[in-house]
Amino acid sequence: MTMRVESDSMGTINVPAAKYYGAQTARSLANFDIGGERMPKEIITAFGILKKAAALANHKLDLMDKATCDLVVAAADEVITGKLDDHFPLVVWQTGSGTQSNMNVNEVISNRAIEMAGGAMGSKKPVHPNDHVNMSQSSNDTYPTAMHIAGVEALENYLFPRIDKLRSTLAGKSEEFMDVVKIGRTHLQDATPITLGQEMSGWVAQLDLAIKAIKATIPQLHELALGGTAVGTGLNAHPQYGQTVAGEIAKLTGQAFVTAPNKYAVMAGHDAFVGTSGALKQLAAALMKIANDVRWLASGPRSGLGELSIPENEPGSSIMPGKVNPTQSEAMTMVAVQVMGNDAAIGFAASQGNFELNVFKPVIAYNFLQSVRLLADAARSFNDNCAIGIEPNRERITELVDKSLMLVTALNRKIGYDNAAKIAKNAHKTGSTLKESAISLGLLTAEEFDAEVKPANMVGPLKLKK
Amino acid sequence: MTMRVESDSMGTINVPAAKYYGAQTARSLANFDIGGERMPKEIITAFGILKKAAALANHKLDLMDKATCDLVVAAADEVITGKLDDHFPLVVWQTGSGTQSNMNVNEVISNRAIEMAGGAMGSKKPVHPNDHVNMSQSSNDTYPTAMHIAGVEALENYLFPRIDKLRSTLAGKSEEFMDVVKIGRTHLQDATPITLGQEMSGWVAQLDLAIKAIKATIPQLHELALGGTAVGTGLNAHPQYGQTVAGEIAKLTGQAFVTAPNKYAVMAGHDAFVGTSGALKQLAAALMKIANDVRWLASGPRSGLGELSIPENEPGSSIMPGKVNPTQSEAMTMVAVQVMGNDAAIGFAASQGNFELNVFKPVIAYNFLQSVRLLADAARSFNDNCAIGIEPNRERITELVDKSLMLVTALNRKIGYDNAAKIAKNAHKTGSTLKESAISLGLLTAEEFDAEVKPANMVGPLKLKK
Amino acid sequence: MTMRVESDSMGTINVPAAKYYGAQTARSLANFDIGGERMPKEIITAFGILKKAAALANHKLDLMDKATCDLVVAAADEVITGKLDDHFPLVVWQTGSGTQSNMNVNEVISNRAIEMAGGAMGSKKPVHPNDHVNMSQSSNDTYPTAMHIAGVEALENYLFPRIDKLRSTLAGKSEEFMDVVKIGRTHLQDATPITLGQEMSGWVAQLDLAIKAIKATIPQLHELALGGTAVGTGLNAHPQYGQTVAGEIAKLTGQAFVTAPNKYAVMAGHDAFVGTSGALKQLAAALMKIANDVRWLASGPRSGLGELSIPENEPGSSIMPGKVNPTQSEAMTMVAVQVMGNDAAIGFAASQGNFELNVFKPVIAYNFLQSVRLLADAARSFNDNCAIGIEPNRERITELVDKSLMLVTALNRKIGYDNAAKIAKNAHKTGSTLKESAISLGLLTAEEFDAEVKPANMVGPLKLKK
Amino acid sequence: MTMRVESDSMGTINVPAAKYYGAQTARSLANFDIGGERMPKEIITAFGILKKAAALANHKLDLMDKATCDLVVAAADEVITGKLDDHFPLVVWQTGSGTQSNMNVNEVISNRAIEMAGGAMGSKKPVHPNDHVNMSQSSNDTYPTAMHIAGVEALENYLFPRIDKLRSTLAGKSEEFMDVVKIGRTHLQDATPITLGQEMSGWVAQLDLAIKAIKATIPQLHELALGGTAVGTGLNAHPQYGQTVAGEIAKLTGQAFVTAPNKYAVMAGHDAFVGTSGALKQLAAALMKIANDVRWLASGPRSGLGELSIPENEPGSSIMPGKVNPTQSEAMTMVAVQVMGNDAAIGFAASQGNFELNVFKPVIAYNFLQSVRLLADAARSFNDNCAIGIEPNRERITELVDKSLMLVTALNRKIGYDNAAKIAKNAHKTGSTLKESAISLGLLTAEEFDAEVKPANMVGPLKLKK
Repeated sequence: MTMRVESDSMGTINVPAAKYYGAQTARSLANFDIGGERMPKEIITAFGILKKAAALANHKLDLMDKATCDLVVAAADEVITGKLDDHFPLVVWQTGSGTQSNMNVNEVISNRAIEMAGGAMGSKKPVHPNDHVNMSQSSNDTYPTAMHIAGVEALENYLFPRIDKLRSTLAGKSEEFMDVVKIGRTHLQDATPITLGQEMSGWVAQLDLAIKAIKATIPQLHELALGGTAVGTGLNAHPQYGQTVAGEIAKLTGQAFVTAPNKYAVMAGHDAFVGTSGALKQLAAALMKIANDVRWLASGPRSGLGELSIPENEPGSSIMPGKVNPTQSEAMTMVAVQVMGNDAAIGFAASQGNFELNVFKPVIAYNFLQSVRLLADAARSFNDNCAIGIEPNRERITELVDKSLMLVTALNRKIGYDNAAKIAKNAHKTGSTLKESAISLGLLTAEEFDAEVKPANMVGPLKLKK
Repeated sequence: MTMRVESDSMGTINVPAAKYYGAQTARSLANFDIGGERMPKEIITAFGILKKAAALANHKLDLMDKATCDLVVAAADEVITGKLDDHFPLVVWQTGSGTQSNMNVNEVISNRAIEMAGGAMGSKKPVHPNDHVNMSQSSNDTYPTAMHIAGVEALENYLFPRIDKLRSTLAGKSEEFMDVVKIGRTHLQDATPITLGQEMSGWVAQLDLAIKAIKATIPQLHELALGGTAVGTGLNAHPQYGQTVAGEIAKLTGQAFVTAPNKYAVMAGHDAFVGTSGALKQLAAALMKIANDVRWLASGPRSGLGELSIPENEPGSSIMPGKVNPTQSEAMTMVAVQVMGNDAAIGFAASQGNFELNVFKPVIAYNFLQSVRLLADAARSFNDNCAIGIEPNRERITELVDKSLMLVTALNRKIGYDNAAKIAKNAHKTGSTLKESAISLGLLTAEEFDAEVKPANMVGPLKLKK
Repeated sequence: MTMRVESDSMGTINVPAAKYYGAQTARSLANFDIGGERMPKEIITAFGILKKAAALANHKLDLMDKATCDLVVAAADEVITGKLDDHFPLVVWQTGSGTQSNMNVNEVISNRAIEMAGGAMGSKKPVHPNDHVNMSQSSNDTYPTAMHIAGVEALENYLFPRIDKLRSTLAGKSEEFMDVVKIGRTHLQDATPITLGQEMSGWVAQLDLAIKAIKATIPQLHELALGGTAVGTGLNAHPQYGQTVAGEIAKLTGQAFVTAPNKYAVMAGHDAFVGTSGALKQLAAALMKIANDVRWLASGPRSGLGELSIPENEPGSSIMPGKVNPTQSEAMTMVAVQVMGNDAAIGFAASQGNFELNVFKPVIAYNFLQSVRLLADAARSFNDNCAIGIEPNRERITELVDKSLMLVTALNRKIGYDNAAKIAKNAHKTGSTLKESAISLGLLTAEEFDAEVKPANMVGPLKLKK
Repeated sequence: MTMRVESDSMGTINVPAAKYYGAQTARSLANFDIGGERMPKEIITAFGILKKAAALANHKLDLMDKATCDLVVAAADEVITGKLDDHFPLVVWQTGSGTQSNMNVNEVISNRAIEMAGGAMGSKKPVHPNDHVNMSQSSNDTYPTAMHIAGVEALENYLFPRIDKLRSTLAGKSEEFMDVVKIGRTHLQDATPITLGQEMSGWVAQLDLAIKAIKATIPQLHELALGGTAVGTGLNAHPQYGQTVAGEIAKLTGQAFVTAPNKYAVMAGHDAFVGTSGALKQLAAALMKIANDVRWLASGPRSGLGELSIPENEPGSSIMPGKVNPTQSEAMTMVAVQVMGNDAAIGFAASQGNFELNVFKPVIAYNFLQSVRLLADAARSFNDNCAIGIEPNRERITELVDKSLMLVTALNRKIGYDNAAKIAKNAHKTGSTLKESAISLGLLTAEEFDAEVKPANMVGPLKLKK
């Protein structure tokens, strides 16, 4: 491999000639050979936005000339589009402030800008990684800013559209099946009837609650640390810097980013991610419940509940038709479990700040962004490969509701509680239906029974007499 | 012990004559001899409110006569005031719908009302536990309603005032010490200066973020399940019941309770508690950071950081003066850890609903209310026994900032980066202060040094030239 | 309330005359009004054992005279039997070393011993709380010792017998139902047959694995910190003290306690509890699976799986016979969830030691002992109120296995894979049984079908031809 | 991309011609576009071992001819060496039984074996993915077997050597610094002296306890599911199959694998991973404590504790010498946090089995193997880049211990408790050392003080008089 020499305050080091990164990235690669989990792509993209906005703000505040600004912006744009992804090799398990990833970005933008300007990579001229790309910044305020940008963008642009699509599919199904009367189940035991549409409306409402919950946490993430520099005091930064750069970031992303009113809190704590991750866990709990309901209702084909059909996407059993493993539910529930584990890690990490810095930043970013990504992807996959194909097995549903003993409550009015209970007890003992039992006990005729016991009349509140 | 006979649909059973509870409570006591954790007091109080509101709503909707309503209300009022606390002996580890605690309340109110009316306890006349106290209700919609009432009341009336008090103490200290310049610390390493007031303002801002986060989740808890009855359809309930009873509860509590737009979601999922518990975890993370900062800054008396003094509330060492164990910080951080464990339990439990019911209700209520209670009590204790007495050790603080090497950055402008670095390296090597080093190297006089190196000038952004 | 004066190094304070505790306990009550969770009873009992053993060891090593030793032992015996339980009012949320509970024990034993000797309570004569009851000890080595004693005793004497009983019930059922052939289920979908006894044998094996796992962690808990005194060096203790007192504790408890080979590790870390709690979580996971299987198999009565009957312990539905809510499963799964939350708290707490001390001791003890207690109680309750009464619904089980399509695999040998698949597909399409389908397709007669398709032949490996 | 046609029971599908995988892998890629986390490499390797052992066992039991066996073995060997890694593209978030990864392995081995035999890929001749590579197996027993193989190998061959190396470094340092007397710290407050070697011996002992704890859990992982086939009954498998194939796996790996005595338990539960993950969490807690102690003791250079020097691996501050950020501690503590999060996910997932199968297998494997990998890598990194270079700052250590007030306890014998306390109080008040205070109060001469107050005499138990 062809190498070139790069340098930092510790001296020189060889780096691959084909890479834009410099000395500090190379040192981190050597010093942190831990796991293989790369710094999340979303963080790199966010750093691209951040560095572009920083250059624009520095220029606006007369701290950076137009030419340098243009070069930084041009290179940062390539970071944003993903063109330079191969130049960000660092792992999550590095310094806890994310300093090395900040330097990785500084180095890559510097060298790419130098290349654009026709300079010599590693020369730090005309675009210096620290003096220019990192101007008015510190790792301590850039990394948390990148976390917030990445977090908001992932939620707004990645998660919400995918959950909305699933929500919309389920809402459609709920409406479609609003009249399919089925047995209700509480404690896993037969209960009074409900319609399939009503049951599914509960799923939709759970998703609505969860999305509302996540959205309510986003204002916290809009508050950016940039401008705090090393310890939050803003030392060496222009007094308008924080506000100016937050404005640029808001403009570039279209999100309502603002400069944090208190920089100490957002550099030394990352509590906002705890709250948002808690809301993601709320979504995970809802999705787990929905995915579990789907697979239980689709259990069978013969010895389960069998009320729903779901699409068959892969071979279940080669010889046994109708055995459709609920694999999308399985992927979804595994994702829900992962989100809960990630949330535990985030809460722990966020509590461990000291004084002016929390040095568990990368592990928070890693877990948070994985949670968002997995929830979004699993929702899309579940929607496309399962939810859109859910169909009721109407015959089975009717069979189960008809043989239910809970319907006996409908007879209270007509024949009194005691006689109704007698019918139910006899049916339970003999294994007959309520109707058979009622007739055999001579308490009602078939016609009378059918006139009284209408499950469809039992799926709502009392009808008021006019 | 004198006993009396009570009965339910399974038959008769003896209960202590001195107790108002009935057969189902007695059975639960026998069947669930697990742990000793009682159903939280807050849930019992909430049930008192709920039963009172239910009677009022039933009366309003012409379902219950005035006399019965008055009796139920009178007995429910005693539940609310805590007068009947000894009559609620059931534990958390019972049926997962909380049915037995609902019945416990029904039985106690029934018997106490009967007693007030001069009837015979256990006779169920004139106030029947099911037909009257539980009218238009089901355990499945009452218990989650009680969870929401208890949750909101605990947050609004118990937690927020206590956190606000701590916040206000810390804000006052922050202002008071806004000019106490001290060393900043990042990565636990010396960094550029900051004032103690600035540092503390970060604590205040963390609390503000957390409280805002918790408040943003409360609208979810305002949505009540009552009116859903057994499976969420509202079977056997008056169509205006949900709305009417929610209105009564709102009136009784002064909180913005409403009937849940979708009853299925709030009976089969308790995801709202996941989101709110996540916000409580955010508060726990913030409090852990604050309590840790306090104890580290107060570490010593000789071999620690020693920048703060905290009140001495109990004997530390009988012979060694100045050894003040940071016991309030310790209690606070233990509470934070507990809240994180509780949050893990809540997330797991909330995800385990099936079909029309989640049967992990009591374990969610137990963990949630413990978290609220512990955070509130620990905040009050930390405030009263520690925060109000925090004082800076000004001499020590000045000593540390003065001997810091980070101040050398202030000399860049005057003598250039290279000479400044030379001073720092020499100071580090010889163990001298920067000032001593600067003088001994002949680069600056004492007067020149003092004129340039003013930590107080290093705690904010650049001063702009006019 | 009559009060008396007690004193410590901070001065005098009033305490209730009827209580044996002294000044430091009284101060703790005032300073830590947090939650209401008392220091676990098991810890108090363990402290009784510890103080008795300490006195005996001190006497053996000629550090304490016989008369004083006898007095301490007599008072400690009353702590062990629980006679003095009302004198230990402190909560978990106190100093993180548990110092105040150690002092509570010292004070109670001192005053009770003084009372026995006819002295004046609070006089500290003839038995001094520090000089005698706490002789050769420090809170820093006593509290972790009490944690280990309490932990081992709770596991050995409380948990294991209760789990063994459940294991034995299930093993008996497994044997009893070894020939009840039923449908197997994977992915919740019908699979090849299994016997109920085989299925239950899996439950038994899961319990066996879990108990073995817990037992494998106990040797760690046998290692006691006593002898380390304040920082682990054993300062001021007799060099044989650690070994001698561990020997006394082993003798008093009948457990294999030894002095820890390294005292620093067991005072500054409580990692052993992390490992053991992990094994308790393994048990919780197993119990959750078992309790879930039971309630799903007992779901119904008409619209669920309905393969098992479980005892009806409380009213399910007054009108609907056969609706038996699986309340014991619900209590058990709630307990499992709690144990998982507790485990999260324990791991976090144990990681937070600094230098010579971990100050999260009470929160670890609290969560650990709650987990043990709940698992034990829930196992006993589940056994007595559910497991012993589990019965197969043989008719339903046979119905489900007979109508299963999975049995078609038994026909491969006779009529080839393609014809077998044809039968299954036709059965699935028409909703008929395999037998009906086989006959209607003319591929087999009823007799041939019955001769080939014997579920009982499908519940084990290939029969080898001799 | 050149494609070829592959088929399964659902029909044909195009796959890239350059890939060995077949139809089911291709379908999984399309259906599970979730996250990017690949099935862990260790699982693929374990599957290679498993498929090789399965072929050898089938051949031994006369179920597979020599030629086919040889072909399967040759292709499986390439899976084991990693040569075919590019052919395993599936993600973790697939079917919960891991079926698709089992099929991926079957397809790759089949096609590679076919290629070796000169056949046409996709023809399934002469080596069929199901009939040969999967012979006597089911996904339901192969995937858990691969989990156990991967788990044991990762622990034995990857984790233990790396932890041992760190343990050995720390043990060496402990011995080297056994006489460096320093201040002890409890509650973060100054306490009685300890030597640096003693303190470090506590770290070593924590690691020893953790490793012992992990090792105690391994026997559970030795029990393999293979032989259980679809539901644990062993249907269609040779009765000696389980034992034979476990023997082959033991031979290939050199690990003590055996066939599980109960197959149901190890297919429907993965509780063993809960216990082992709990022990990994114990290790994480120990490493967190150690890494925290290191960074706190190395805090400074001027305003921290400053007792240790650690290697400087990357630029800290370009101008401030001596500012060495404890980045290896930071990576280690982030890893510890991650392991705790992973453990939460594992416990939850393992509890969610139903009937004959737990369908959370891949998420358990993913989290477990990540924990092992991260702990091992972080231990190696921490050892090589930090621990080996830890050096005491002897001057600073002596300064702190000398100025400590705790040493006053050494004067009790000579001048009595009251006078000793007087010296300490005066020193605290005046900010002087104990020696200065003693002299100024006229209680001791300098010589007398030095003769009595020897910190080195305070780091062990009482010296017994002969």
